[in-house]
Amino acid sequence: MLGARCLFRALRFCSSVPCPRHKPSSKLSVRDALRSQNTSGERVKVQGWIRSVRSQKEVLFLHVNDGSSLESLQVVTDSSFDSKELVFGSSVEVQGQLVKSPSKRQNVELKAEKIEVIGNCDAKAFPIKYKERHPLEYLRKYPHLRCRTNVLGSILRIRSEATAAIHSFFKDNGFVHIHTPVITSNDCEGAGELFQVEPSSKIKVPEENFFNVPAFLTVSGQLHLEVMSGAFTQVFTFGPTFRAENSQSRRHLAEFYMVEAEICFAENLQNLMQVIEDLFKATTMIILSNCPEDVELCHKFIAPGHKDRLEHMLKNNFLIISYMEAIEILKKASQNFTFTPEWGVDLQTEHEKYLVKHCGNIPVFVTNYPLALKPFYMRDNEDGPQHTVAAVDLLVPVVGELFGGSLREERYHILEQRLARLGLTEVYQWYLDLRRFGSVPHGGFGMGFERYLQCILGIDNIKDVIPFPRFTHSCIL
Amino acid sequence: MLGARCLFRALRFCSSVPCPRHKPSSKLSVRDALRSQNTSGERVKVQGWIRSVRSQKEVLFLHVNDGSSLESLQVVTDSSFDSKELVFGSSVEVQGQLVKSPSKRQNVELKAEKIEVIGNCDAKAFPIKYKERHPLEYLRKYPHLRCRTNVLGSILRIRSEATAAIHSFFKDNGFVHIHTPVITSNDCEGAGELFQVEPSSKIKVPEENFFNVPAFLTVSGQLHLEVMSGAFTQVFTFGPTFRAENSQSRRHLAEFYMVEAEICFAENLQNLMQVIEDLFKATTMIILSNCPEDVELCHKFIAPGHKDRLEHMLKNNFLIISYMEAIEILKKASQNFTFTPEWGVDLQTEHEKYLVKHCGNIPVFVTNYPLALKPFYMRDNEDGPQHTVAAVDLLVPVVGELFGGSLREERYHILEQRLARLGLTEVYQWYLDLRRFGSVPHGGFGMGFERYLQCILGIDNIKDVIPFPRFTHSCIL
Repeated sequence: MLGARCLFRALRFCSSVPCPRHKPSSKLSVRDALRSQNTSGERVKVQGWIRSVRSQKEVLFLHVNDGSSLESLQVVTDSSFDSKELVFGSSVEVQGQLVKSPSKRQNVELKAEKIEVIGNCDAKAFPIKYKERHPLEYLRKYPHLRCRTNVLGSILRIRSEATAAIHSFFKDNGFVHIHTPVITSNDCEGAGELFQVEPSSKIKVPEENFFNVPAFLTVSGQLHLEVMSGAFTQVFTFGPTFRAENSQSRRHLAEFYMVEAEICFAENLQNLMQVIEDLFKATTMIILSNCPEDVELCHKFIAPGHKDRLEHMLKNNFLIISYMEAIEILKKASQNFTFTPEWGVDLQTEHEKYLVKHCGNIPVFVTNYPLALKPFYMRDNEDGPQHTVAAVDLLVPVVGELFGGSLREERYHILEQRLARLGLTEVYQWYLDLRRFGSVPHGGFGMGFERYLQCILGIDNIKDVIPFPRFTHSCIL
Repeated sequence: MLGARCLFRALRFCSSVPCPRHKPSSKLSVRDALRSQNTSGERVKVQGWIRSVRSQKEVLFLHVNDGSSLESLQVVTDSSFDSKELVFGSSVEVQGQLVKSPSKRQNVELKAEKIEVIGNCDAKAFPIKYKERHPLEYLRKYPHLRCRTNVLGSILRIRSEATAAIHSFFKDNGFVHIHTPVITSNDCEGAGELFQVEPSSKIKVPEENFFNVPAFLTVSGQLHLEVMSGAFTQVFTFGPTFRAENSQSRRHLAEFYMVEAEICFAENLQNLMQVIEDLFKATTMIILSNCPEDVELCHKFIAPGHKDRLEHMLKNNFLIISYMEAIEILKKASQNFTFTPEWGVDLQTEHEKYLVKHCGNIPVFVTNYPLALKPFYMRDNEDGPQHTVAAVDLLVPVVGELFGGSLREERYHILEQRLARLGLTEVYQWYLDLRRFGSVPHGGFGMGFERYLQCILGIDNIKDVIPFPRFTHSCIL
């Protein structure tokens, strides 16, 4: 991939003589080697790590993987090449000819002419053992090494592909990407669950904060996105968010990723639900198309039966019920809940899971929640006597709540009254300003990225879909 | 953009009857309207904010902008439509026919049949004034409104485009994207300049930390990327990084974005320099091609003459000098420096700027820095008597240092000795593990994303290329 480049030995300034470049070597990634159409003896160089060694009387088989794909490249050579250093986990450079494989297991194999061990692997000490399928809990103890297993490799390649697909979805639909800030002086939403930020050393004058005001890690980029939507109409952000929740749940992390979008001139929840459903389906279709083997690994070994469940989600239109209807369903349920369902009380995970099941495992939008349950910025439906706001959550199999969104209160006087009641008028003067200068109806939503990955792959624990999980009592590396 | 969607009034569960969807309306973004080929009276709806109003005897001209492009859409209508509410900054919905414009200033205009004011704008209170070109310093006081000006609109659209281009560059070249953690227990690099993170409320048991260990905001994703490169060969990250520097400089922020890459089997600095130069040029070419008007605005009104300087950077091969050569050049300089250049002393901004100028304003790589100046992980060149490491910085016009990178010490015993000398062996056992289990030669680099934008646009102050700047004494919103 990387071409060589000449290093000027003598000083050469302001020269317009182009620097002569060497042609790229015939170095190939494993992925490209496996896909190569040219199997008539093309000479190539492949570098990677040994995943298996099999020595027969006269032939030595190696499988070399470089993380570019789940599948490894089979290397075939004379058994005289065998050495003690050719073991699982060691790194090698192999040169030889790419040929059609006589075996049905692979199309292509590499007839090695030269095998060089780059770095040994201390197999006894290596926590990942040859041919063992380690439980995910075991691998979590080794965040610096677990990515070298098939399963974490697949999950993280899918995560990378999903990231790209989400960026593409929004770009193709005319959204401007915004880096909303990580450090913020807003503390509206999370009250007791915020992380605070301060310089660790004595840079600061003792009495004052570094930022002059208390600063926190963001719990949502929404309010900042609302600012930007007033300039670009459609905006999105995709970045880290934080909750200092003391939770050991399989659905929560202290640091997780959120995809958030804000859309001006959105007039009703249907507008938002359409984008949510499109985003979910388009992203998932791209992943299925670009990482079929990686997805199959998850669906086969981690979540058997999940392939069908995902197809079921994709081929059906998502359902829509109101919060009120949801409560009615829960009340009629034969199941005994830990938390009694009742109008005015938030849905718990057990309720969310029941509703999804009740809906035949099709993702279901729940709309119009009680005003008293929701933050000040959600648009008042001005209904009654059961007063609601134009909020919407999407509940899905495996994780429950995946998306949360709402129309925002764009009417200056209503917003002002609500802020006044909360004693927040002064702090949110800037937010009121957005309604003073060319206000428009708008709304938006956020999706937990890790929960999305859990939902499509059927992975039970959120700690297995993020490279370096952070949660109570754990911040390894 | 957004199709309507039927809301089930009655409960419908497990239904496979597809939900009937209405056809999308003829709503167009300003950008799409301006590009429309169909100017034979197509009926459309455009929504946005008024950028100018000009009332003539019988005709009323409006310019409507929705942030999808720098250019606004001209709306032409009968002057009877004029009203006090049609002012700069108010939001409107205009329906009418898209026609060819008789004026040379634009190809297309909208013959309005209906104009609805959505949200008024209190022009007296609005800090952005009609037809005024506000200084960037003035706009910084209004982070919630400045994005509505032409110049910030252009810069942030370019930022969005650059973000997409960087993701594409790496994806197209086979890199896996990794979300490196924001909260980390590593504190190697920044010593005195770290932000510490703690829950703001009393969730925690008094004596213990939330994470059991002191936790900080990341100063670089490099070490985590090195972990991942051992699985995927080529990886990158693009996320926020933090320094608690008490600086009011035009090149520093407390929260900024870094693009970082790590490449296994990179054997020399040329490998890294090639990727750096390719990344810089490919990203810039995409921006120039996709946002020509936005770039032109910056080059015309903010940094006159910068267009030529950028072209000069793009058409020349970047230069390469060693640190030692750089010191020689600085010693011979006629300029008096505040800091005397000398072997073993770090290059200061004044030195960097001199070197770039000396090199005819072509970006210049400086290689092989003194070992004593650089962190423990950089690869020892084992030279002497002036002992260096395989480090490389790229210096560019406007900002000085833009990229910093190095080969990493992949040799277990050399790394172990350096860590032992620093008393860090235990803390970095995991990092040593990477050299114990299939170590490979590798290297990587980081680019300050805001500095990149400053460099290509010629923008003097880093606070103007990020949506919400955070620096000492300032964390607005």
